[in-house]
Amino acid sequence: VAEQAAARSDGGRTVAILGLGLIGGSLARDLSALGHRVLGYDRDPATLRSALADGCAHVLPCDASSPEAYHAIEEAGVVVLALPVGAAPRTLRELAPRLQGASLVTDVGSTKRTILAAAEAEGLGERFVGSHPLAGDHRSGWEASRPGLFRGAPCFLCPARGASEAAVGHAMALWRSVGAEPQPISAEEHDARMAWVSHLPQAAASALAAALAGSGYGAGALGPGGRDTTRLAESSSALWTDLLLDNADQVEPALAALEATLAELSGCVRRRDAATLTRLLSEAKAWKER
Amino acid sequence: VAEQAAARSDGGRTVAILGLGLIGGSLARDLSALGHRVLGYDRDPATLRSALADGCAHVLPCDASSPEAYHAIEEAGVVVLALPVGAAPRTLRELAPRLQGASLVTDVGSTKRTILAAAEAEGLGERFVGSHPLAGDHRSGWEASRPGLFRGAPCFLCPARGASEAAVGHAMALWRSVGAEPQPISAEEHDARMAWVSHLPQAAASALAAALAGSGYGAGALGPGGRDTTRLAESSSALWTDLLLDNADQVEPALAALEATLAELSGCVRRRDAATLTRLLSEAKAWKER
Repeated sequence: VAEQAAARSDGGRTVAILGLGLIGGSLARDLSALGHRVLGYDRDPATLRSALADGCAHVLPCDASSPEAYHAIEEAGVVVLALPVGAAPRTLRELAPRLQGASLVTDVGSTKRTILAAAEAEGLGERFVGSHPLAGDHRSGWEASRPGLFRGAPCFLCPARGASEAAVGHAMALWRSVGAEPQPISAEEHDARMAWVSHLPQAAASALAAALAGSGYGAGALGPGGRDTTRLAESSSALWTDLLLDNADQVEPALAALEATLAELSGCVRRRDAATLTRLLSEAKAWKER
Repeated sequence: VAEQAAARSDGGRTVAILGLGLIGGSLARDLSALGHRVLGYDRDPATLRSALADGCAHVLPCDASSPEAYHAIEEAGVVVLALPVGAAPRTLRELAPRLQGASLVTDVGSTKRTILAAAEAEGLGERFVGSHPLAGDHRSGWEASRPGLFRGAPCFLCPARGASEAAVGHAMALWRSVGAEPQPISAEEHDARMAWVSHLPQAAASALAAALAGSGYGAGALGPGGRDTTRLAESSSALWTDLLLDNADQVEPALAALEATLAELSGCVRRRDAATLTRLLSEAKAWKER
């Protein structure tokens, strides 16, 4: 299996990255600096111009109507889908016929079950290892991308069913080469965990900012604490709609738990119940400090 | 009136600070450095030892059973209550007979209606100007106090009914001397504003951390966004129980608004309603970026 993969690839020297946003753009910068030939695809002409101006040498339109552009993907040993989770499975299906030469196909999405199912359905399971680098922030786009973004960042790796050891090893090496710390995990455990530790805080920050938007006070009235608590509300609405809905079955119980604790806190305030309120605030504090 | 105040005071050279926590301790450090004689009171012997060791020369027990300690307060031209909002009104009532020589009595609490009512009831209105410096963070205690904490920080000033111009001017000068930017505001408007821009984010962060505490995942599983969103949950449970309940009538509608936006978001996820979810996330983002 490892020999087959090696035979297919060009040793990973050519890497195709589809989507030059915060994550894809940062990966393009780092892999170019490491000597890879990076084929950078994006559907936005302005992004392609910026990437070219910033030294990303091979930029191509991400457009099914340009068969010559997609043809270059066949030269890539590694293909990285750095697209919103709502768009990645469709693109994977479109590209599947052109991915026969790649020894590793991966993505960078914040949910993993859907993309793995798509890869398996296209017969790419042996060479597909999903990735989720825990890097970046609320910003997005090529302008937000930067060298060294992945240094020290955990990167979850979710091998598709039937993924070869060579593909998993290749994915580990790829992320380690840009300073990330790969952590293998099943797609199911990944999505359950993210629902709580990532998707729920995002939903809470957005709900808080939406409530404040109705108060008549501007964001400039916030102190440092309020600014931190609402920071994630600046994230891309389109990306997060995709994420919350793609992981909806796992996000629902997390949201229900937050609604319940908020109702409990609110009840304490309404009843002027100092003892229960202190207990609730103390439990939250103890968890955060543990 | 100004002459009376000047006659009463020692020109503000001696400042009594009751409570050497994050705010009181930082004020004690800055005012000492500016050449004031600072009488630092605290009920905790360990805090008094630390303050003394750190160069706060005059430290005294905050204890009604030590009449000789409280006697020294009569020498102070400025008296600052830097106590939790649940304790400040009672202490003000206990001390009132000893505050006849002070030209300015103030506090640093995050709610203002209750302490102003207490000052007015004790006949201190003419010389009482409530303060709320927007400084500090989730930490508390003398160990968290530091020089320069108030530099550039807005400081709300709420004069009691009948407060003299001299007292207001004295309060403005005091805060400006440590680098803060005084902003006069009525206690009613202050408390209404704080309910939304400070108390609601605190409640949201604590509710989120409490929900996460029940998930089985530790705080170490959070990414940078989740860490920011829950940071305020590390605040003192006792201080925040006091604050949320002291301002309960204003906090209740703010909490109700958050519960409503969260229910709306949760409903979108349950119904897989991408259009409404995107609209809600976009409204939150637009408010935050405005």
